[in-house]
Amino acid sequence: MSTDVRKTLIAAATHFYQVGWMVGTAGNLSAKTPDGSFWITASGCNKGQLREEDFVRIAPTGTVVESYPNQRPSAEMSIHQAIYSLFPEAQACYHVHSIEANLVSHFTDSEELPLPALEMIKGLGVWEEDPQVSLPVFINHLHVPQIAKEISDRFSHSPPPVPALLIRNHGVTVWGSSPATTQNYLEVVEYLFRYLVAARQVGISN
Amino acid sequence: MSTDVRKTLIAAATHFYQVGWMVGTAGNLSAKTPDGSFWITASGCNKGQLREEDFVRIAPTGTVVESYPNQRPSAEMSIHQAIYSLFPEAQACYHVHSIEANLVSHFTDSEELPLPALEMIKGLGVWEEDPQVSLPVFINHLHVPQIAKEISDRFSHSPPPVPALLIRNHGVTVWGSSPATTQNYLEVVEYLFRYLVAARQVGISN
Amino acid sequence: MSTDVRKTLIAAATHFYQVGWMVGTAGNLSAKTPDGSFWITASGCNKGQLREEDFVRIAPTGTVVESYPNQRPSAEMSIHQAIYSLFPEAQACYHVHSIEANLVSHFTDSEELPLPALEMIKGLGVWEEDPQVSLPVFINHLHVPQIAKEISDRFSHSPPPVPALLIRNHGVTVWGSSPATTQNYLEVVEYLFRYLVAARQVGISN
Amino acid sequence: MSTDVRKTLIAAATHFYQVGWMVGTAGNLSAKTPDGSFWITASGCNKGQLREEDFVRIAPTGTVVESYPNQRPSAEMSIHQAIYSLFPEAQACYHVHSIEANLVSHFTDSEELPLPALEMIKGLGVWEEDPQVSLPVFINHLHVPQIAKEISDRFSHSPPPVPALLIRNHGVTVWGSSPATTQNYLEVVEYLFRYLVAARQVGISN
Repeated sequence: MSTDVRKTLIAAATHFYQVGWMVGTAGNLSAKTPDGSFWITASGCNKGQLREEDFVRIAPTGTVVESYPNQRPSAEMSIHQAIYSLFPEAQACYHVHSIEANLVSHFTDSEELPLPALEMIKGLGVWEEDPQVSLPVFINHLHVPQIAKEISDRFSHSPPPVPALLIRNHGVTVWGSSPATTQNYLEVVEYLFRYLVAARQVGISN
Repeated sequence: MSTDVRKTLIAAATHFYQVGWMVGTAGNLSAKTPDGSFWITASGCNKGQLREEDFVRIAPTGTVVESYPNQRPSAEMSIHQAIYSLFPEAQACYHVHSIEANLVSHFTDSEELPLPALEMIKGLGVWEEDPQVSLPVFINHLHVPQIAKEISDRFSHSPPPVPALLIRNHGVTVWGSSPATTQNYLEVVEYLFRYLVAARQVGISN
Repeated sequence: MSTDVRKTLIAAATHFYQVGWMVGTAGNLSAKTPDGSFWITASGCNKGQLREEDFVRIAPTGTVVESYPNQRPSAEMSIHQAIYSLFPEAQACYHVHSIEANLVSHFTDSEELPLPALEMIKGLGVWEEDPQVSLPVFINHLHVPQIAKEISDRFSHSPPPVPALLIRNHGVTVWGSSPATTQNYLEVVEYLFRYLVAARQVGISN
Repeated sequence: MSTDVRKTLIAAATHFYQVGWMVGTAGNLSAKTPDGSFWITASGCNKGQLREEDFVRIAPTGTVVESYPNQRPSAEMSIHQAIYSLFPEAQACYHVHSIEANLVSHFTDSEELPLPALEMIKGLGVWEEDPQVSLPVFINHLHVPQIAKEISDRFSHSPPPVPALLIRNHGVTVWGSSPATTQNYLEVVEYLFRYLVAARQVGISN
C-alpha cells in the first residue's frame, strides 16, 4: 500500500474518461495518504491525460500541503473535505458527470431517488430480497461550499443508506474504504442510473 | 488444450468488463479442467483486473479443491454446478449482468422470453426459416441455491431450446462445449437482448 | 499493393467486432486478389480473433481454390460472388450484422429504405443539395443462394444508387473499389442507420 | 510548443474516430502554426488512420502553402478560414459529425439551440447559476463557402456566446486558444448534445 495513490487515481480517471464520465475537464478524484491528507485532481485538467503534477495535496483542514506551479485544487474540494470529515473510514472519493446521472437527477423532485431492485445492488453492500434503497439527492449551487455544507448538515443527522450522493444537473459522488472499492461502487451506481434511463425509454417501471 | 483455462477466463472477463457486462464485481465465469473439476471466479473481485489467484477450483460435488488465501468461490457457484451436472458436454459457463438482460427479463411475465427472428439466431445453433425460439426465465432469489434448484428441476424434465437462461433482475447464464463457443453464445444472446430493447424504443414488434 | 489482403480483412474484422457489428461468429468479409479470385472469411470463426488460416480463397466461378484443414467458406459466399459478378470494379465486399441495420430493415415494408438527407451522405459519393437516396432492401431466406439470386436479378436491370444493400433481419452488405473505400462506405451506411434509429426515438422524421 | 501540430491533430482525430464523431472520411481538423498559416486535414482521408502527409498547410489568405502529392485541402477549408479570421485568438478549429449533433440541429427551427443548464456548461467558460446559453445554428449548403459567408456575416455583428456553432444536418464546429482547449470544448458540446437527445428520449425538458 506504499504506492503513490496518484497512480491509482490516474488509472481510474483514464478509465472514467474513456467511458464518458469525465469528458472535457469535468469531475474530480481524491484519495487519502497515510498522514490523513488527500491528493485531489487540480482544476482545469483533461481527465484523459492526467500526470502526477495535476494533483494537489490537501490537509484535513483544507489547507494546500503540496502542489505544483500554476495548479489549484479542484473547485469542488470542499465536497471531498466534507465526505472525509463525515466518514473517517473513507479513503477515496470520486465525483464524475455521466449523462445518466444528470438525467436521473430529474426522475424525482424530492431529496431521494429510489434505486431499482436489481441483483447489482448487492455491489453496494445491500444484501436483501427485493431491496428498496434510495439515493440522497442535493441541489446544485454555483458556490460549491454551499453544496458541501448541505451535505454535511443532512448526513450528520441522517446518514445515507449507500456510500453515494447525487447533485442535480451535476453528477454523482461516491466514497469507499479504498480506491478499488470506490471504483466498484461508482461502477454499480452508474449501472443503476443507466438501467433507470433505459427502463424509462422502454416503459418499464421497476 | 493444455493451457490453464484461467488465462482464457481472464481474457473473457476483461472483454466483458469493457463492454459493460461485468461492472463492479458482478458476474462469474467458470471452465472445466480435464479431471472434471472447474475453476470459477472468486467472490468480490473486480472483473476488469482478474489474476490467476482470483479463481477457486471446485470438484463436481461442490467441494473446494484448490484456492488462494482469503478467496471464497463466487456466491453463485451452485448455478454453475447445476449446469455442469445437467449438461455433461458443457465445458464452460458464463454469467454476466448486462443492462439489457435485466430489462428484457421484464418483457414477459411468464417463464419464457420469445427471441426475435433474426439471422443472428443461427449463432445459437438454430437453423430455421423465421425461427421461433424462447429463452427460459427464472425468478431471482436472495438465496442462490434456490435458483440453482429451480434450474435443475425445470431443465431435468424440460431441456432448454438454447444453451442459455435468464434470471429476472439478475442477468443471463450461458454454457457451451468450450470457452470459445460459450463466449460466442453469450455475444449472440446479448445481441438479441440489445435488439429487443432497441426495437421497443422505436416501436417495432418483431 | 502486394500485401496479403487477408491482413487488411483481419484488421477490418477486429474493428467491426469491437464496434458490435460482428459479434459471435456473425458476418463475412472478402477481398479480391490480382488473379480475380477472392479471399473470404471461413464459416464459424469469431471475428474478433481471425487468423490467416480462417480464410478460404474462391475462384470467380465459386470453386474453392485454396483453404486450410476443416475450413469451409462462409455460408454467404454466394452473395459475395454475385456482387463481384455484377460490379467488376468491386475489390472488396463486407457484410455485417449491426443492431441498427436489423431495426431499420423494418422501417419500410417496400424494397427501398429512404436514407436521411445528411451531409454524411457525401461519403457514399452523392453530392447533392438535400439528397434523396434510397437503399435497396431484400428479403431474408434460409437458403442463401436464393438471396444472391434475387440480388443478381434486381441489380442486373436496376442498379443500386449507392454501393450497398440491406437484407431484412440480417444485415447490410457494401462493396467498393478497395478495402479502404469499402470500410468507409460501411461506416457511412451504419452511421445513417444509427441516425435513423435515434431520430425515431426522439420523434424526428428527416 | 515547438511540436508539429499535426501530431496533436492526428491524436485528436484518432480519438474522435473511435468515439464515432469522424466515421468514414467525415470531419476536418486544423491548427495554426507560429507564422499564422494553419494545417488542415486533406480531403477524403479516413480519420482513424491519418498520417502527416494527410494534411495541407494554408495561408491566412486561403492559398495552399505546403502539401503532399494528390492531396487537396478539406472541402470545408473556408469555414476554418472564416473562424481564424473572426477570432484571432483561435489556434485550433475542429469540425466533426456526431449523430447527436445532427439530431439536435432539428430540435429548433430557429437560428439558436438552447443548451441545457448543466454544471458541465462551466466547461465552456460560462460560470452562472442556472445558465441560459444558446448555440448558433446555421443552414447547410452544398456550396461550403456559402456556409462560411453566413458564419462571417452573422458573427461579425453578433458574436456567439460560446466558441461553437452547429450546421443543420452536418455537424458542429468548435475553436479555442489551443488544440487541448478546443478538444475540451468539443467534448463538452458533444456531451450537451447527448444529454439533449437522451432527455428527449425519457421525456425530460430541462
